[in-house]
Amino acid sequence: MTAIDEGLLSPVSTGHDDLVSDRLFLNALVRAEGALVGAYARVGVAPPEVERDVDHVFGLDEKYRAVSKGFNVAEIAEAATGGGNPVIPMVSRIKDAVPAEARVWVHRGATSQDIWDTAIMMVARRATEQVRASLGDAAQRLRELAHAHRDDLAVARTLTQHAVPTTIGLHAATWARGLDRAITRLEALTFPAQLGGAGGTLASFVEITGSVDAAERLVAAYSGRAGLATPDAPWQVTRWPVTELGDALVQAVDAAGKLATDVATLSRTEIGEVVEGTGGGSSAMPQKQNPAEAVLIRSAALRAPQLGATLHLAAALAGDERPDGAWHAEWQTLRELLRLALGASWHASSLAAHLRVDVDAARRNLDLTGGLVLSERLSLVLTPLIGKERVTALVRDAAAGGDLATLVRALPEASTLDVDALLDPSGYTGLAGPLVDTLQEEK
Amino acid sequence: MTAIDEGLLSPVSTGHDDLVSDRLFLNALVRAEGALVGAYARVGVAPPEVERDVDHVFGLDEKYRAVSKGFNVAEIAEAATGGGNPVIPMVSRIKDAVPAEARVWVHRGATSQDIWDTAIMMVARRATEQVRASLGDAAQRLRELAHAHRDDLAVARTLTQHAVPTTIGLHAATWARGLDRAITRLEALTFPAQLGGAGGTLASFVEITGSVDAAERLVAAYSGRAGLATPDAPWQVTRWPVTELGDALVQAVDAAGKLATDVATLSRTEIGEVVEGTGGGSSAMPQKQNPAEAVLIRSAALRAPQLGATLHLAAALAGDERPDGAWHAEWQTLRELLRLALGASWHASSLAAHLRVDVDAARRNLDLTGGLVLSERLSLVLTPLIGKERVTALVRDAAAGGDLATLVRALPEASTLDVDALLDPSGYTGLAGPLVDTLQEEK
Amino acid sequence: MTAIDEGLLSPVSTGHDDLVSDRLFLNALVRAEGALVGAYARVGVAPPEVERDVDHVFGLDEKYRAVSKGFNVAEIAEAATGGGNPVIPMVSRIKDAVPAEARVWVHRGATSQDIWDTAIMMVARRATEQVRASLGDAAQRLRELAHAHRDDLAVARTLTQHAVPTTIGLHAATWARGLDRAITRLEALTFPAQLGGAGGTLASFVEITGSVDAAERLVAAYSGRAGLATPDAPWQVTRWPVTELGDALVQAVDAAGKLATDVATLSRTEIGEVVEGTGGGSSAMPQKQNPAEAVLIRSAALRAPQLGATLHLAAALAGDERPDGAWHAEWQTLRELLRLALGASWHASSLAAHLRVDVDAARRNLDLTGGLVLSERLSLVLTPLIGKERVTALVRDAAAGGDLATLVRALPEASTLDVDALLDPSGYTGLAGPLVDTLQEEK
Amino acid sequence: MTAIDEGLLSPVSTGHDDLVSDRLFLNALVRAEGALVGAYARVGVAPPEVERDVDHVFGLDEKYRAVSKGFNVAEIAEAATGGGNPVIPMVSRIKDAVPAEARVWVHRGATSQDIWDTAIMMVARRATEQVRASLGDAAQRLRELAHAHRDDLAVARTLTQHAVPTTIGLHAATWARGLDRAITRLEALTFPAQLGGAGGTLASFVEITGSVDAAERLVAAYSGRAGLATPDAPWQVTRWPVTELGDALVQAVDAAGKLATDVATLSRTEIGEVVEGTGGGSSAMPQKQNPAEAVLIRSAALRAPQLGATLHLAAALAGDERPDGAWHAEWQTLRELLRLALGASWHASSLAAHLRVDVDAARRNLDLTGGLVLSERLSLVLTPLIGKERVTALVRDAAAGGDLATLVRALPEASTLDVDALLDPSGYTGLAGPLVDTLQEEK
Repeated sequence: MTAIDEGLLSPVSTGHDDLVSDRLFLNALVRAEGALVGAYARVGVAPPEVERDVDHVFGLDEKYRAVSKGFNVAEIAEAATGGGNPVIPMVSRIKDAVPAEARVWVHRGATSQDIWDTAIMMVARRATEQVRASLGDAAQRLRELAHAHRDDLAVARTLTQHAVPTTIGLHAATWARGLDRAITRLEALTFPAQLGGAGGTLASFVEITGSVDAAERLVAAYSGRAGLATPDAPWQVTRWPVTELGDALVQAVDAAGKLATDVATLSRTEIGEVVEGTGGGSSAMPQKQNPAEAVLIRSAALRAPQLGATLHLAAALAGDERPDGAWHAEWQTLRELLRLALGASWHASSLAAHLRVDVDAARRNLDLTGGLVLSERLSLVLTPLIGKERVTALVRDAAAGGDLATLVRALPEASTLDVDALLDPSGYTGLAGPLVDTLQEEK
Repeated sequence: MTAIDEGLLSPVSTGHDDLVSDRLFLNALVRAEGALVGAYARVGVAPPEVERDVDHVFGLDEKYRAVSKGFNVAEIAEAATGGGNPVIPMVSRIKDAVPAEARVWVHRGATSQDIWDTAIMMVARRATEQVRASLGDAAQRLRELAHAHRDDLAVARTLTQHAVPTTIGLHAATWARGLDRAITRLEALTFPAQLGGAGGTLASFVEITGSVDAAERLVAAYSGRAGLATPDAPWQVTRWPVTELGDALVQAVDAAGKLATDVATLSRTEIGEVVEGTGGGSSAMPQKQNPAEAVLIRSAALRAPQLGATLHLAAALAGDERPDGAWHAEWQTLRELLRLALGASWHASSLAAHLRVDVDAARRNLDLTGGLVLSERLSLVLTPLIGKERVTALVRDAAAGGDLATLVRALPEASTLDVDALLDPSGYTGLAGPLVDTLQEEK
Repeated sequence: MTAIDEGLLSPVSTGHDDLVSDRLFLNALVRAEGALVGAYARVGVAPPEVERDVDHVFGLDEKYRAVSKGFNVAEIAEAATGGGNPVIPMVSRIKDAVPAEARVWVHRGATSQDIWDTAIMMVARRATEQVRASLGDAAQRLRELAHAHRDDLAVARTLTQHAVPTTIGLHAATWARGLDRAITRLEALTFPAQLGGAGGTLASFVEITGSVDAAERLVAAYSGRAGLATPDAPWQVTRWPVTELGDALVQAVDAAGKLATDVATLSRTEIGEVVEGTGGGSSAMPQKQNPAEAVLIRSAALRAPQLGATLHLAAALAGDERPDGAWHAEWQTLRELLRLALGASWHASSLAAHLRVDVDAARRNLDLTGGLVLSERLSLVLTPLIGKERVTALVRDAAAGGDLATLVRALPEASTLDVDALLDPSGYTGLAGPLVDTLQEEK
Repeated sequence: MTAIDEGLLSPVSTGHDDLVSDRLFLNALVRAEGALVGAYARVGVAPPEVERDVDHVFGLDEKYRAVSKGFNVAEIAEAATGGGNPVIPMVSRIKDAVPAEARVWVHRGATSQDIWDTAIMMVARRATEQVRASLGDAAQRLRELAHAHRDDLAVARTLTQHAVPTTIGLHAATWARGLDRAITRLEALTFPAQLGGAGGTLASFVEITGSVDAAERLVAAYSGRAGLATPDAPWQVTRWPVTELGDALVQAVDAAGKLATDVATLSRTEIGEVVEGTGGGSSAMPQKQNPAEAVLIRSAALRAPQLGATLHLAAALAGDERPDGAWHAEWQTLRELLRLALGASWHASSLAAHLRVDVDAARRNLDLTGGLVLSERLSLVLTPLIGKERVTALVRDAAAGGDLATLVRALPEASTLDVDALLDPSGYTGLAGPLVDTLQEEK
């Protein structure tokens, strides 16, 4: 047994990445080969029985869980190194497994890349649905959180410093909006099948089916059976289906990363506005409430962008009709990126579901600067009355320890002001409430 | 004078990047401030004269070329280092320049990030239009090339080796399709203005305008004057407008990079299928016809993905209501990426316009393997007749020097075959022609 | 005037990057050409007067500040786009400027890459000295800080949570050690000149000087005049001098980034253990003490690694004897990386020089968890006495609000313990003091 | 069974990466725990029997192949997700396995990061030795190749075009030099153990051992038992041991990538100067001799730099005494980088061992431009005799089809020249031979 990776080094994804295991890739490769054989039958080139045979032989369970009879991942991986890709040894094993009349139709006219790229899209489509579902869960929980804490005050921080009041609701709404946008991108993705033959001309398929028209129908039948979109042209060296997928996955991880970054900060011992509802403490150090899910999500967010960059490099360097390294560079990179997106989105969903907010701590922190968090408002209101210099002096006095309300009340020009209202942070939250109200419904 | 960069180290963009110079960014910053003042007048909070004053003072020429009166880029850059961004010193200079009654409306209620992010979107929108136009030119030229050489034969190469026949037309069509897809992405971009105030709540704007409703109208007026989309919410820490822009720009460079990678290969002395129509030779080495534009484009393609990755990192780490470094990391990164996209797309357009194709060389190369480039077809046709082993033996004999046609004609089982037709590469180009025909019209 | 970049978008480096401006690169290019002419005279091939002529014509001031007579950066940058690099137009201008007898020796036998790579190393060597000096200043200040606060208590935080006691001194010592290591890397760098001729064989130099031996002496003389190491072989396509430089620069930025990351956290309003001594406040929000230098340093730290990655890609793809894009991808990338290192190291030095530590705040934070920050120690001491379960129960009681000292004193088994000493964090700082004492002396 | 990765998507490393499998990481974790227990005995704090017990219980076979009794990788990986790292569940299993008197010493005073970072260094040290050995093999084979083909002519190509003559020997010497430099970097690496306790102060170890001095001896004993260097200070948040390792690994892959990039080019059907001696053909397309190892190496070279970048990001963001995500981002990233280096270096060694050079093809290509590849030399020799303009005209005539030798012989001023010698490329290879002769001996 030669398993390199059982999840030990990737806790963010462990338990959430079985949709992108080698086994699932191998299953998808087998299914892609099955789709081609089936397509030959569908367009009337191969006899109809072949389709049944193949369905039987290739038939994987609905959960994509079981490796087909006789396909051993490690053995095929090992055999793949000679030719540089696993399709070649896999095809021999399939040919050995199917009845003689079907054998000739296996992989017929195809090049390894046709099968591989199609399989990648099959795996990616399913995994992306899962990512999208997790993001949707996370966003929904955050919307609920936003509504529940619509008017609970908190402080907005910029460059690490208290700036002005905001609400817990707006925090949550901001997180939800980032996730919603990422969902939009995922939903807009196209997952095309790939069928081009050795040089992207489909010449072999025209030869086998006897006409351009039949070859085109073959592509459509193949794509349909693979559960993918029919491509307008082979994309073996125009890799936008991979980079657009990669970009959307990175965006998904980014959005989870923003949530996690804030949760990590708000969980700090000195801040304590949120606590992860799951997340183990330490028996030796019971004072610790580690934001474990936020940490894991952030570990993904620091990795994903560079994986996305590699996919773009591979696209730009996709020379000739199959390039000399760029295509191979995509495989593991894309899997890792899918894996990070699966893990990060799952943890975002769990984090959002279990996040506990300490409304009192948020309010306590807001008051830490003795009302100075309202100095922008004071400046807007008082400057017309007493001029900029005196406002500056007043807030400096307050910053030096003076009581802000007292200082304002002492101003003759401010005698008509309702100082309590002026210094009440709940009166200076602007659109925080409406920005919660206008959150879109569940996607 | 402290110009760091006048283009000496960036030949791919030199002469094509003035839309993203510091001067243009400064102009956009000034215009964003102008948009805010104008918006106050538009929603009836500031007196109407203010709008005229501001138009006069801020008015830049239509080409965005002239720095406004009294704004010196280097001086503002220098003054910016204290506070960490150039908006602060710029605002003082604007206040000095405008009449007293307008002064109070300058930057009123705004935070630097509002102005900066809006300005970035203004610059990016214009630059992206230019990138899109260049890609459109390039794609159009390549479509013409594809149609002109629809049936001119060439060899498809995989893993550096001759694989099967293809056409020059399909090469060009593939390049055009990649560019077209990149155009689609650019056209789908959203460029929203940003207005959130210090903490993203718009509290200052509600305070100043007197109501939530007026603050919302202010955002719309501001966005409109800036020529940008009205945001559904502040995006100061949900950075998808930046990462989606970055992703699309990288995709544009990728598509140009694929073209350039192929042109570089096809230009090799030993291959010689294309020559760049521009591109200087070397007086000392007149045998050289350097694919200079392809080289420059490829230099951009090797850099762009990592810049895109940095934008994603900045998005994921956009903590709090303004993060402690991630936002600042975007600025130069985005400019460099815009610059690369401007330069690479311009050179793609020039390269496509001037590319000279040597049809004879392409044909000569196709014939280099003595017909073996048709061995896939031979295998498809002969295997049913003589079995796989004998086909393999036959092509091995040919590979060892035997004449392929003679060997095939010597097969009793092949007596009815039209060997000339079988070995004619023009009969084995599959969908190469239709894939040219189905290229979409000019975008 | 076409300056793209005067520092507006790069506040981390503005004012600290003139060693890597286009002008300085151009100066270095001119000096590299001068080194070659001088080397010809030195080895006795060119007449000795030529060296004087060239010294006169090429002579730049000691500060590298002045562009030589008649060399206009923007004009050469513009002229460079045809051939793809600025050496070609620069050489014509030099030839126009020098006396006829010297003219023939200008650029004689060289290829543009010889001059460019040599110039890059000249610029990098000087800039790297500056980076090293700034890091040295920063490390020295931090050592002083470490010694000054050797025994001032603070809390060690892991995964955002209070863990155990530490000292301010160890914080500073840790920062200093990271910087010291980065200095070690910078000091180990080699900056070789490059001289290989068109194909890296030095054939032209053998032809011109008349012998292999003279060509080798020419390389040594050229390197010496350029102030660089003599290479053991041309490195035009073995790019370790560039990637090792890049790696060391990134490491320098990393070390500054670790310092900045901690300063940003410790500056948080709720934590307040440090304040940047420079750094502007906000007049509208006087409660803010932005850690502006930390923010700028972090912006560099988020960008540098991806620039380093691009240099490695360029090295791996340095095909043939000059590659088709990879070399060109290095130029701007390396400049940006040098720039970030110059800026980040300067700000690290300034930050370290002005950092103000609030010893009381550090102590206050340490006490926030009511002694539970010592629970690891309690566990070590009490477990042998009362067993693990009772220890766990005890700290849980304390975490729920009980007074820790009282709870411990109530244990019959702990009657002989000095509970005050046990719960005194100053008794549980381990090697924090010695780790300050063993800091190496100023490098 | 939940193996995610058995090598299917990573053919470059399949079969060469068992030194970095999860199992090996787990073994190293167990061994690191064993080193700590043993160290306690060594410094006289724990009873000596404990060391024997632990050796027995923890004892793994010499090949690091067998997982210790009862440790199941997948189960521990799964259990790790709660606390965010696998050390926690692993420690419980070890405690269950050891005798009662040893139990208390297991993981005593340590934090997970101590064990993890030490284990990472243990794994990395062994894997790096393997990378270094493979690079050494590759370099040695290339040195032999260089000597064997010291004077065999070839063409130097720049920007894809023929430039001047060179030799096959110099090609190989250049590849060897790049590998040798990478070896130098690997050999200079330091692999320190990590032992700092929860906050990097070693307070727990001082508490347990009773003195600062004993704690320092504990670190030395622990490091020694782990086969690692004794650190001068904990490096849990000064991550240079990881980034310097990463940089050196990327440099190793770069050097292999340069070799592979050239082999891919020189293997092109039109060029044919080298053939990989292994490397499967295609039965359907027997004309193909895919440079399969070069392709795999290049796939690694396109991925490695971005992985290195992630390690640097993690170093820069290593905030506090354990960061909130950056540390976790290192794990899988470093493994993948080790894996790529293992695979790429192995294939470089195999490629170098089996590379077949076609001397005749190299010579044929050199002659493709009819002697114009010597035009630089012609220019150097003829310009003093007939002036630059006439030289230019002459080579243009030759480029247009004239016979170069005849054109030169027709020059009255050239009557004394030995034209045959002048146009013999073997006379214009400069230092190509000496640069082979000066290759260093086997490292």
